[in-house]
Amino acid sequence: MTGDQGHIGEFDRIARFFAPLAEGAPGAFGLTDDAAVLPPASDGLEWVVTVDALVAGVHFLPDDPADLVARKALRVNLSDLAAMGASPRGYTLALALPKTLPATADWLEAFSRGLGEDQAEFGVHLLGGDSVSTPGPVTLSITAFGLVEREKLLRRSGASVGDDLWVSGTIGDGALGLEVARGRLFGAYSDLADRYRLPRPRTTLGPRLAGLASAALDVSDGLLQDAGHIAARSGCRLVIEAPAVPLSESAAAAISDDPDLFARALQGGDDYELLFTAPVECRSAIDASGRDVGVSVTRIGRVESGTGIELLDRNGVPLEGLSEQGWRHF
Amino acid sequence: MTGDQGHIGEFDRIARFFAPLAEGAPGAFGLTDDAAVLPPASDGLEWVVTVDALVAGVHFLPDDPADLVARKALRVNLSDLAAMGASPRGYTLALALPKTLPATADWLEAFSRGLGEDQAEFGVHLLGGDSVSTPGPVTLSITAFGLVEREKLLRRSGASVGDDLWVSGTIGDGALGLEVARGRLFGAYSDLADRYRLPRPRTTLGPRLAGLASAALDVSDGLLQDAGHIAARSGCRLVIEAPAVPLSESAAAAISDDPDLFARALQGGDDYELLFTAPVECRSAIDASGRDVGVSVTRIGRVESGTGIELLDRNGVPLEGLSEQGWRHF
Repeated sequence: MTGDQGHIGEFDRIARFFAPLAEGAPGAFGLTDDAAVLPPASDGLEWVVTVDALVAGVHFLPDDPADLVARKALRVNLSDLAAMGASPRGYTLALALPKTLPATADWLEAFSRGLGEDQAEFGVHLLGGDSVSTPGPVTLSITAFGLVEREKLLRRSGASVGDDLWVSGTIGDGALGLEVARGRLFGAYSDLADRYRLPRPRTTLGPRLAGLASAALDVSDGLLQDAGHIAARSGCRLVIEAPAVPLSESAAAAISDDPDLFARALQGGDDYELLFTAPVECRSAIDASGRDVGVSVTRIGRVESGTGIELLDRNGVPLEGLSEQGWRHF
Repeated sequence: MTGDQGHIGEFDRIARFFAPLAEGAPGAFGLTDDAAVLPPASDGLEWVVTVDALVAGVHFLPDDPADLVARKALRVNLSDLAAMGASPRGYTLALALPKTLPATADWLEAFSRGLGEDQAEFGVHLLGGDSVSTPGPVTLSITAFGLVEREKLLRRSGASVGDDLWVSGTIGDGALGLEVARGRLFGAYSDLADRYRLPRPRTTLGPRLAGLASAALDVSDGLLQDAGHIAARSGCRLVIEAPAVPLSESAAAAISDDPDLFARALQGGDDYELLFTAPVECRSAIDASGRDVGVSVTRIGRVESGTGIELLDRNGVPLEGLSEQGWRHF
């Protein structure tokens, strides 16, 4: 480490912080070669690939702990794999760091520690990467790789009229958590802020839904907008029963205090739950899949003919203020 | 397009500029899903993966034409695949654009046009991507995918004592071209600047060398430093005959005018030629491979026992001023 405000050269960065994350992945060659080799996919399996970029000040707060930044970056990609029904196997990392980052070694230590923790939790390895300097903010992109059975790939386009609409976990924690993290929502809601900072990708549920669900995606733009994506790609109408949308205890308490927050919960992003459609005859199999992997699954509506989405109140009456682009206001 | 200095929303950016680049890749699903599917690798083939990040002001000049930026970003990745002996098949893109980028639509149009031109030239397709805003400079990372025969993968670690040392094309054009581009080297050397701005990855030669070469990499850090990488990974000494290093006409002319530029040619980066070792009995096969694909290949030295690298003058006398870390001075 030189006196250059803790700046560390590329080779040192790789050897100290990243090569240990490639241990256990033979095709990564300890990050010493020009490229990595993906393990051969077994018969009938296909590689699924996804990429997400995150920028400090845009996708996370510049002073967010580096280990949480790393884990969030990895998890949003694992969520995309889960949405396709794929089991995660590995990832590559491109990291642009400001030379002026204070205490670069500490930041990288925490960043790589966060990746290591999630590698253990999700069974993935770092396969390759590039680490560069930037005069701008911390910027990282992760490309993640997973395997799916060729015939069971989940897409956004398979919903059929008559299917149920389901969602995993709870909705709105990410959006309300961002309000808490920004100091705009007060109360004993630190669990919501944690949900915003550290999504829980449904990596075990997604592959279980492959072969059952007719269409799926992960809720990153907000429940209503993402439901609109399935509707648009599948050429149908998604009807959502508002009272059926599952809320966490904290989100329900916050909304009870301020009912306007319900709209925020439905239109906010960063849920990283799976939103999916499935034939009615799959209900018990889906319930069983959720139980097996310990993730709640809730039926929140149905697929009808038409276009766009519709949100119904407790009396089955359409709520106003909704457009295909998402929620406007109640 | 809004009045926000030409800022274009993510969905529009994808539909207008990037989805057309995914046509012809069935597994990209028109960039409408959460992830893409790699085509199944035929029996005996493996997927090779590499990633490179580029930042405006660090890896390219902020006012470099966007089409050249795009093509360079793609090509440096294709060069990494070639160094492993892999044939390129596709790539994903993460792009962070300043909202204040003047004429964003024009920039994106040129950027995607550049990618399209190189897709046609190299037979690859865009498989997926992410497009985000940044308060910093243009930042992009590309993850590229190629296929190689499982048993023929080229690595940095396979050189044996007695092997020849070879290099493709010409050395120093990238480094001298950067001097031209920066206005520090004057003369009729616009072809050198072109070489700096637009590398020529040896995508057809690399796969031909798979099964012949014992070790390989692409010259991105400079001939001497990259030779040191092969030496270090292979546990041997690389001896380079300075007069044998192939120079382009322009580089030779520039060096004839200013002999100090020879050191710059050997230590500068951005050549993106293949540096490789091979058993003596492969000489004619390697010459034939170069002829077949229209890329010159030149023997520039040999592998000896020991460590590090050695540069010999025309009389076979070691040149001073060299260290394992690269060239210092003559």
